[in-house]
Amino acid sequence: MANDKKLVEQITSMEEDFAQWYTDVVVKADLIDYTSVKGCMVLKPAGYAIWELIQRQLDDRFKATGVENVYLPMFIPESLLQKEKDHVEGFAPEVAWVTHGGLNELQERMCVRPTSETLFCDFYANDIHSYRDLPRVYNQWCSVVRWEKETRPFLRSREFLWQEGHTAHATAEEAEERTVQMLNVYADFCEQVLAMPVVKGQKTEKEKFAGAKATYTIEALMHDGKALQSGTSHNFGDGFAKAFGVQYTSKDNKLEYVHQTSWGMTTRLIGAVIMVHGDNSGLVLPPRVAPTQVMIVPIMQKKEGVLDKAYELKDMLSNFRVKVDDSDKSPGWKFSEQEMRGIPLRVEIGPRDIEAGKCMVVRRDNGEKIEVAIDELQTKVGELLDTIHNDMYNKALAHREENTRVAITWPEFKDTIENKPGFVKAMWCGETECEEAIKDETGASTRCMPFAQETLSDVCVHCGKPAKKMVYFGRAY
Amino acid sequence: MANDKKLVEQITSMEEDFAQWYTDVVVKADLIDYTSVKGCMVLKPAGYAIWELIQRQLDDRFKATGVENVYLPMFIPESLLQKEKDHVEGFAPEVAWVTHGGLNELQERMCVRPTSETLFCDFYANDIHSYRDLPRVYNQWCSVVRWEKETRPFLRSREFLWQEGHTAHATAEEAEERTVQMLNVYADFCEQVLAMPVVKGQKTEKEKFAGAKATYTIEALMHDGKALQSGTSHNFGDGFAKAFGVQYTSKDNKLEYVHQTSWGMTTRLIGAVIMVHGDNSGLVLPPRVAPTQVMIVPIMQKKEGVLDKAYELKDMLSNFRVKVDDSDKSPGWKFSEQEMRGIPLRVEIGPRDIEAGKCMVVRRDNGEKIEVAIDELQTKVGELLDTIHNDMYNKALAHREENTRVAITWPEFKDTIENKPGFVKAMWCGETECEEAIKDETGASTRCMPFAQETLSDVCVHCGKPAKKMVYFGRAY
Repeated sequence: MANDKKLVEQITSMEEDFAQWYTDVVVKADLIDYTSVKGCMVLKPAGYAIWELIQRQLDDRFKATGVENVYLPMFIPESLLQKEKDHVEGFAPEVAWVTHGGLNELQERMCVRPTSETLFCDFYANDIHSYRDLPRVYNQWCSVVRWEKETRPFLRSREFLWQEGHTAHATAEEAEERTVQMLNVYADFCEQVLAMPVVKGQKTEKEKFAGAKATYTIEALMHDGKALQSGTSHNFGDGFAKAFGVQYTSKDNKLEYVHQTSWGMTTRLIGAVIMVHGDNSGLVLPPRVAPTQVMIVPIMQKKEGVLDKAYELKDMLSNFRVKVDDSDKSPGWKFSEQEMRGIPLRVEIGPRDIEAGKCMVVRRDNGEKIEVAIDELQTKVGELLDTIHNDMYNKALAHREENTRVAITWPEFKDTIENKPGFVKAMWCGETECEEAIKDETGASTRCMPFAQETLSDVCVHCGKPAKKMVYFGRAY
Repeated sequence: MANDKKLVEQITSMEEDFAQWYTDVVVKADLIDYTSVKGCMVLKPAGYAIWELIQRQLDDRFKATGVENVYLPMFIPESLLQKEKDHVEGFAPEVAWVTHGGLNELQERMCVRPTSETLFCDFYANDIHSYRDLPRVYNQWCSVVRWEKETRPFLRSREFLWQEGHTAHATAEEAEERTVQMLNVYADFCEQVLAMPVVKGQKTEKEKFAGAKATYTIEALMHDGKALQSGTSHNFGDGFAKAFGVQYTSKDNKLEYVHQTSWGMTTRLIGAVIMVHGDNSGLVLPPRVAPTQVMIVPIMQKKEGVLDKAYELKDMLSNFRVKVDDSDKSPGWKFSEQEMRGIPLRVEIGPRDIEAGKCMVVRRDNGEKIEVAIDELQTKVGELLDTIHNDMYNKALAHREENTRVAITWPEFKDTIENKPGFVKAMWCGETECEEAIKDETGASTRCMPFAQETLSDVCVHCGKPAKKMVYFGRAY
């Protein structure tokens, strides 16, 4: 038993040190490896397979709304990056610069894309001529680079994988509609695929994307009570179109600027899944993004017929993502490993089970053990995976609700932020200065102005001036 | 009619200028756009969708052989690139260098990966400890950068998309087996998905990959008689393992070096598809990678019931990739457009067809028109798509066979290379010096030493020394 427990013992407990627990899980669950390139990681098979499942399901949802995929260059000439003033100020300090191609110095240096608004605008300026060419609803899956000083696996790395949608529309209304539509796609995806509840809302002027007119966000609450921005959708109005000359001829034969949006989600979502659902035994994967949904563990596998039966069960479960652990490790070790890797269901099958025509099914999310007749296994596994998804969602939602508190007065606000984890809902005057003062005094930033507004009081929690918006405040990753 | 023909008139004919024909098709079929970044292109929806279909079907074939996907950083520190002598000599002259991160100069410059052998070795050196960790059969889908001077869409660009498999094995035999296995996967994929016959063989010492012990290749013949290297698979032996210290403890508790392979295919395949199958009306897509397999064109679509019927047919064909062209363009324009974009089947449906319960199906590959009863349409379309695939394959194979010639004597060889398109099969002494002389004198390079060897004569076609191998020679892209 001592040996079987080794895997688990190497994880720090969440309560002791959440950051260390996170790092332990990421490595022990075999999701990533560190590399010789500072701030960049290897996504190992177990980690990349989660991304593939996210990508496939998100891409299907995109395509159902008319999105088409494209691929643009990874380099941006410096002069192109500089065309939109706010945008270049936001990104220039954190890009990687290519200065030499082969043995020669480049005439103009280029950055590796931190995001591709400028490239899409340059492309659209050539590609869009008439109202017949609109809307353009394009997306790309790629990697981007931001030269961060502090990095953490999945949450903040110098290179990360993402999708970036970039659209162009004839009217401001249509652009606004698409911006909100994609935020809703993101929120539904988080809830229905990642079992992760999110708050939908708008970023403040201070927190919005460089060059955007409005940024919408989904914010999720991690197990430690910190917030994680999990996806954003931006409405650019015609600002970029004017900077890049993206124009079309309208039905009335007038030259008009297009209205644009962009929206993105990243491998950061894997960090969110870990920190929302994980526990002190390791990762807990939502069934719909679990690369292996069911691990079959044979008990006394050297006894005749046990391994054969295990493979038979595997065939029965072939419409799920299923594996048999037929390695020569002990069952106890296999159990720990399945738990560490967050596999939603374990099926134990041994000689006595075979005799009785049943097996033991164990849930990763709550440890429940369920005796199941073998001829009902297929139906039961399907039901259980759905039940686990729903239970994980509800547990995460309950955690968020317990950790979302209201503050009316400033002392209340300060006390809550200091002593309680989670979101604080409070009224705000709408002034950036006041927002900055709140952050300086407490470390809490404005996460979003939720779409679902409430009136908690008439005045700003900090300055006492008339309140304009209810805001979710929190400490964030 | 004049207007309807415009699209087609803008293509140069193949016979007149093949290179210009190629460029015209690439642009008029809406596959790519040029960008402000010299040597890099935009893959537009019609082009990227072909890549997505290639990727999905190739990835399925990989996974069926036990391949797992991962993702490694896009940057390689200079010191890492330099660890394997032959490899750095092969790639250093054509990489893009990142020298600054944000506002600071980097302590060590990094190149954007031209290929990732060095990164995989660095990773495996940490990741592999025991024989239990082997084999490692990993692959990644990503983009790579090679700072080429002359570029052409799909065939040679500074950035391109590809997959790169990198494996590590306990024995030399196992590595050799994997190298050949992946070449066979590539060849089958080309034949069964792209309808493109290929010659399988080994590269000569001169033409092999920088750092490899042996490089295997598949070579395809384009319509103009030039060869295109379409996929390669390399056996590294333990050369990289020794340079990077990738070792494992064997069952007998000895420290051994691993044996490695790598193999890749790129967006170049799209160029191959264009140049193998295209004609003077534009692109001709093999059905299994056609983003739209069937285009339904309503005739007299303003007449009551026509558009409804067109959508009804679309629903009937929902297990294919099908679209209705309900734009306000004329049928003639729509026909030209469908031809230009290479859509395998067109279904024409008008008032008289509806009355008669039938429709007209037109094949893109040979122009054949087939009257089909509407209630047989679904079955017929499935059959036709398979027939088209087979006919396209056979046509390409016949073209290659007609354009593969034997040369026994040097005058024969020179005459054939100068005056006939295609491959020349000839005997070779195995000396690099002789190979270089042949290239200097004729422009023909050794494409491969085919696995299917024949003895055409006993002596080298060029120097008259004893022959060691039969070689496919040709001019290449």
